[in-house]
Amino acid sequence: MNPTYIARCAQLAMLLEVSATPKPGNVDRNHDFDDVKYEHFLASAIGVGPIFERAAIAKKGIGSFIRESVEESIRWQRGGNTHFGAFLLLVPLVMAAGNDDIKSVTKVVQDTSVEDAVEFYKAFRCIKVRVGSVKELSIDDPNSVNEIKRRELTLYDLMKISSKYDAIAHEWISGFHRTFRGASVLEEKLGQMSTNNAIIFTYLTLLSERPDTLIQSKFGLEKAIKVSEKASTLIENWDLGAISDFDEELIREGANPGSTADMVVGSLFIALLGGVKP
Amino acid sequence: MNPTYIARCAQLAMLLEVSATPKPGNVDRNHDFDDVKYEHFLASAIGVGPIFERAAIAKKGIGSFIRESVEESIRWQRGGNTHFGAFLLLVPLVMAAGNDDIKSVTKVVQDTSVEDAVEFYKAFRCIKVRVGSVKELSIDDPNSVNEIKRRELTLYDLMKISSKYDAIAHEWISGFHRTFRGASVLEEKLGQMSTNNAIIFTYLTLLSERPDTLIQSKFGLEKAIKVSEKASTLIENWDLGAISDFDEELIREGANPGSTADMVVGSLFIALLGGVKP
Repeated sequence: MNPTYIARCAQLAMLLEVSATPKPGNVDRNHDFDDVKYEHFLASAIGVGPIFERAAIAKKGIGSFIRESVEESIRWQRGGNTHFGAFLLLVPLVMAAGNDDIKSVTKVVQDTSVEDAVEFYKAFRCIKVRVGSVKELSIDDPNSVNEIKRRELTLYDLMKISSKYDAIAHEWISGFHRTFRGASVLEEKLGQMSTNNAIIFTYLTLLSERPDTLIQSKFGLEKAIKVSEKASTLIENWDLGAISDFDEELIREGANPGSTADMVVGSLFIALLGGVKP
Repeated sequence: MNPTYIARCAQLAMLLEVSATPKPGNVDRNHDFDDVKYEHFLASAIGVGPIFERAAIAKKGIGSFIRESVEESIRWQRGGNTHFGAFLLLVPLVMAAGNDDIKSVTKVVQDTSVEDAVEFYKAFRCIKVRVGSVKELSIDDPNSVNEIKRRELTLYDLMKISSKYDAIAHEWISGFHRTFRGASVLEEKLGQMSTNNAIIFTYLTLLSERPDTLIQSKFGLEKAIKVSEKASTLIENWDLGAISDFDEELIREGANPGSTADMVVGSLFIALLGGVKP
């Protein structure tokens, strides 16, 4: 498959995800955060195109593509971290698409090296993010990289360690199961509702099926479970007004289901690659 | 200047323009038309990346790059024409940027050939658009292409013919004067207001300075002048509520200042290329 086509599907996935509204708790076309604004997400999605294009023809180097994506993303806008979690999913998916076999993503991540883990830590340093951090190997501890080298930990190993408390890492070790699940939901719903609403439906479905780990890390498991239960109610009784109210409630609390939003980017990429069109 | 950098500035210009809201009368992040929706503009902007990249290193072929942009744009979404007028401005600007001299755009358009004119007509055929049509050489008349060849009309000649009633064509023969003017307004306003509001301010400024030719072609000169006078009042008494009301009024009437919106895309491109960041 054409690498520029793959890259553009990944970029459009980023745009469609951030544009979908109301997307309870996260940045969307009608909701900025104080520091990170909608336009920052647009610029980030545009900026990373050439990195994805190179990733689509590469056979290795996930870690450095993740680092380069982060660097390019923050070069194009002034909002800081916009897509860290999304890049963790998109880069291996893009590489798998470049193999003409999106399902090869499992092998792509299993084949990562110690060098990939080191590059991943460099990416971290560009933007101190909460999501995806490996608790035993703190990003703030300069010894972490030495420790990674000493223990010969690959990026896959790091993801295994953090998979218990981070949904994106869990995708890495579980064949991107939920990301593919989201793509199926999207494909089904795009025939029944507008592109925007199909994305919101998919987001709420994924959120309802598992507590969001970003909310969990900020507010604890109980809160994350409550948010998921509410998402479940909202998809059963589809009502954009009620979804908007929930959005306002989460925004007010600062409770953003960021891991779920990242996953929807991955799901959109798979669906677009499969031929879905806005 | 790096061709992928140039292409991405052009793509981001398209995204920022269509996202700015409330943009009286046109599609924005909160306003779809019945057939053309916001998401169609996002997909179009993503789709054309590789065409712009090739245009940035090309020395000739404006006409075919315009045709390819249109074809790629409609391949990526189901809404039809989104960016025809914008491509007419962006393609020569991208080529000029590729020369490391954005001001060389005047020479770039003057150097067009009869072949460029023929390709432009092919682009037209993909999407019957109102804006930019050359009245004497109807797009619906299969003899138009023969007539262009017989009279040896270049694309610049066609633009000269239509410059009296089409603002985009007028840019071609006047050194992209208003597009550059918009870039100056943007650069000034971006220091004083949000990215979104600076774009709206620029749009209203350009609209106030000259009647929009798309409105003129649909509703006549008198209506176009009225719209411009109203835009003038709105920038003098900056009030987003009043701008929203005007937006609703124009949307209701189907009066969209499309040529002015296209010009803002060009202005944004110049400003982004000059280092402005969202």
